[in-house]
This record gives sequence, structure tokens and C-alpha cells, in this order.
Amino acid sequence: VSRHFADRLADAIAARRTPAVVGIDPVLERLPTGLRPRDGSLASACEAVEAFARGVIDAVAAIVPAVKINSAFFEAFYDRGVAAYYRLIRYAHRRGLLVIGDVKRGDIGSTARLYACGHLVRGRFADWSDENLPDAATLAGYLGRDSVQPFIDAAARQGTSVFVLVRPSNPSADEIHEFGGHEPLYLHLARCVHAWGSVAELRGACGLSCVGAVVAAKDVASTRALRKAMPHTLWLVPGYGAQGASLDACRACFRAAGDGALISASRSVIYAFEDKATLARHAGDWQACVAEAARRFARDIATCAASAGGAKP
Amino acid sequence: VSRHFADRLADAIAARRTPAVVGIDPVLERLPTGLRPRDGSLASACEAVEAFARGVIDAVAAIVPAVKINSAFFEAFYDRGVAAYYRLIRYAHRRGLLVIGDVKRGDIGSTARLYACGHLVRGRFADWSDENLPDAATLAGYLGRDSVQPFIDAAARQGTSVFVLVRPSNPSADEIHEFGGHEPLYLHLARCVHAWGSVAELRGACGLSCVGAVVAAKDVASTRALRKAMPHTLWLVPGYGAQGASLDACRACFRAAGDGALISASRSVIYAFEDKATLARHAGDWQACVAEAARRFARDIATCAASAGGAKP
Repeated sequence: VSRHFADRLADAIAARRTPAVVGIDPVLERLPTGLRPRDGSLASACEAVEAFARGVIDAVAAIVPAVKINSAFFEAFYDRGVAAYYRLIRYAHRRGLLVIGDVKRGDIGSTARLYACGHLVRGRFADWSDENLPDAATLAGYLGRDSVQPFIDAAARQGTSVFVLVRPSNPSADEIHEFGGHEPLYLHLARCVHAWGSVAELRGACGLSCVGAVVAAKDVASTRALRKAMPHTLWLVPGYGAQGASLDACRACFRAAGDGALISASRSVIYAFEDKATLARHAGDWQACVAEAARRFARDIATCAASAGGAKP
Repeated sequence: VSRHFADRLADAIAARRTPAVVGIDPVLERLPTGLRPRDGSLASACEAVEAFARGVIDAVAAIVPAVKINSAFFEAFYDRGVAAYYRLIRYAHRRGLLVIGDVKRGDIGSTARLYACGHLVRGRFADWSDENLPDAATLAGYLGRDSVQPFIDAAARQGTSVFVLVRPSNPSADEIHEFGGHEPLYLHLARCVHAWGSVAELRGACGLSCVGAVVAAKDVASTRALRKAMPHTLWLVPGYGAQGASLDACRACFRAAGDGALISASRSVIYAFEDKATLARHAGDWQACVAEAARRFARDIATCAASAGGAKP
């Protein structure tokens, strides 16, 4: 049994001095020249993507406290890709990183119990290493409490955590999340997540719950309303960089003490070598480009978190 | 490229004379005596579950037009289970069944594109057989059109289909789906699904779209409102049997012609052998118990569909 995820994360953030998280979203079409697959086979495609992901993890391991590994990018290679996903989680753990498994699973309770087994629950089989499992998983909670409870039960027992989708970063999500009567769906979801996770038994020494939320940083006013509805909730904030969230928008995600949020960037960091000038400056070393982008991102987010208490209302 | 999924399904329903679908949700704790794992290892657990699922497919292949294979129950065994999931899809195809992959995936567009690759898109790798991929996949559309568009694009090109969650069967889903102002979220979702799928290019010769919906049969009045909002939408109706949907509730899911809905049952069919009297009557043959339950289910649903046009308003 590990300590509470939020407390382990607080230590890791203190050690790296930033609440920035790098997202691992590798696509075949954007691999560095030297890592392109040798042929059009599934086997070589999957190997190439895994090698790239390992290289990104090596490049950022000393810079950020955690990585978020997006399952979809490995499921694209079927069971072979899923095997790589689990291996990469272990690889990141061995480099001292916390790992968030970005799986966005959500189904009725009897099915959610099995999803929790596949993605979070420890101690099931002697011939399986739990080092392969992430420290936290993202979930879709649209099927209500049933759909997250098996994950919460595991989290409470085993020092892991969940992040429930409350406000996605893509514009088309507003089609659903702005829907409502006296308040929009995303605020209703926020109240549910708070209710599911705010009980004392689920909170760490730092006060944050093991039931976290995925909250995109959109306009500052709505972000403040969400923070007010979820005072003890750790947020995973997607969309810095390529998806367009600004530093000002991210600042409103933190609590006044500068804690309570992890800011994630994927494409703007892991594909930093695509910029020809950057690659030339690093003499063609793609990992140096990724490390440089990660350091800049980590520093920007650290400054952002530090200034959160003084943010203008 | 295959014919439109809804047309292939209509043929299969005509051949089996029922729109009943068996759900494959195998759990270790409920396997027939002879199939229990030989030890506590992941390897033997996964083999046992796969053998049971094959046995269920054999038992129902001549009775129903399609099976729904629930990914969660295989993801519980990590990449090894995911490999079994794909093998079972191929196994069901070779026994003449259509296959719905129950994966409930949903994420922003750039991620949804990768999920579509892993679960629906054909023709990607020479060393991969598309026979391993389902004919249709269930999706979570809560992130809006972006989150389903890559699947719809594949479906339109390749004669496959999607079923987007509109109204889940579990009571706790109401916590989210009853939310709203002048109408509940589930009706808003229904209008989105209709809008995403009702264009002529996405509809088969039978008139039904490749953008289907997962709709639990709850009270008849709300089911009728949903049917009115989605006149060209094929429904996958979960929850007959163990989850409590009645025949009267299911009847309201069909269109007046008795088409437009697939009714799914899992536990009430695949665990029919757990009833001691049933097992004794079949001299301990668990597959005969499953086949008998499937035949009764298939007949009940056929009668239900046939009476749909005459259902009282």
C-alpha cells in the first residue's frame, strides 16, 4: 500500500519544483527521422512508437514529476500496443516518474469493476507486476457514481487516484457540457465529483482528495466557479500549448496556495524537434529539443502556480 | 468495403428471425466448473475466460444475429486479455455472427482518431487481419461531435457502425442524464446523435443510419420521446434480464415496422447454467443451458418486435 497519491505527488512536485506533466501521445506520422518504422508492418510501427515514447520519457524524467500516457495512442496497435502501454508505465516508474494512465473509461458499475481491474487495482496475479499499472487513471463519470466507485474503492485502499472528466478541452465538448438549465452540465459534474470525493477518508495529508477532475482552462470566470465547487479536488488540466490554454487561464486552476492542479502539455513538448531551427540548434538531437521544451514548459507552469494566490479576481 | 452495417444486420435478423443480441461479459468467479483456471496466474485466468467466451459463442451462434463483446472483461487481463478480445471477435465472425465491440471510448478528436484506429478502421497493416475488428463499436459521445467523427468517417467508408451512449441502463446514470433545463440531458444527447447521423449518405438501404445509439428501456413515455427524436437511428438496448428492462419497455424501442432496435442480454443468458435445476435438466451440459436461455430470449424479443406496431401509445 502506497501513501495517498496527492501526498506522493506533492513530494514529486516539490522535488521537480513544478506541477507540469508531459503527455505521451505518439503518432507514427510525427516520429523523429531516426525512429521511423522500417516497413509498413504493425510490428515495426508499434516498436517505433514505443521507442519514441521511451526517448521522451528519458528526456523529461528529470524535469517533471509525472507523465500522462494516453492509452488511445497505443490501443491503435491493438493488443501489441496495449502491451507497450504497460511496459512504458513501468519504464516511467523506473525513471522516478509518477504515471497517469489516460484511459477515460466509463461504464455501468458491473463493467466499471472490470475496467478498474485492468487499469488501477493492485495485487491480483502473481505473474503480473503492478509496476505496470499507473498511479492514477482518467475516467468518464457520465454514468454516475456507479461508473467511478470501483476505481475510488481501489484508490482509497491503495494510494492511487482518479481524474474524472468535468470539462474537456475541445470546443465541440461545449455542445454537451454547456447544456443545462440554471447551470451548465460541467458545473453539475463538478458538484458530483466533489460529492464523490470530499469525504475525509478519501483525502490525503495535503487535504486533496483521491477523486480528482479533468478540467480544461477556458474563461477565467467559469474556472473560478469550478474551483469553488471543487475546493478539495486535484485537477488535471489538459490543453496547455497545442490545445490553446493560456497561462492566465491556467493560473485560475490552482488554489490560492499554488497547489491543487497539474497542467499537462503533450504535442508542444514531445514534437519540439519538428521546428527546424530548434533541431539545428541542438545539432539534430531530438531528445535535447524535447528536454528544452519540457524545461520551458516546467518553468512557465511553476511561475504560473507561484503567482496563483495573487491572481486578480 | 462491406455493405452498410444496418443492411447486413437486417439480413442477419431476417435469417435468425430475432433482433436479440447476446452480450459476452465473462467473469472468473462465475465460470462453469470444468473451465475454472488451474491456478491463480494471470495466464490461466485469461485462458479460462477466453475458453468460456468461445463456448458461449458456439452455443448461441445459430440462434442470434450478433454478439456484443464487452472489452472491459478482457482488459481486466491487460494486454493478454485484449489479445483474447480480438481473437474472440474473429472467432465469432467465423461462426457467422456480427460483432459489436462494447468499448465505450470517448475523447477529444485528436485522440478519438487513434481510438477509431484501434477499434474500427480497416486496412491499416498487412500483418493484421481486419477479421479481428468488430462490425460496430459502442462510444461515449460526451465530448461532442469531435469525439465520434473519426469513427463515423470509418463507418461511412467501410460499412461499419457506431452506437453512441444516449441513455445508460444503470440507475446512477440518472444523476447525470436526468440533469437539464427544459429537457433532460439524454434527450439533448439524442438530438445530437440524430444530427450527427441522419444525413442521407450515412443511411443504409433500410433507412437506418450508421450512427446508432445505446438506449436503455426505462419508462415507456421517455422511450417514445427518444424514438421521436431519433427516427432513423438503430438502437442497441442493454439491460434485458439481469439489468431489469421488461418486454413492455423494450417494445417501445422498436419502430412501428418492428425494426430499428437490437435488444441485448448478457448475464441472464451466459450464466443460465448457474441454476441447478436447469443444469440438471441438461445433464450438466452448461452450453445447452446457455443455448436454451438464448433461444427463450431470442423468441421473447422476436415476439416483442413483431408486436411493436400495435403497441398502445
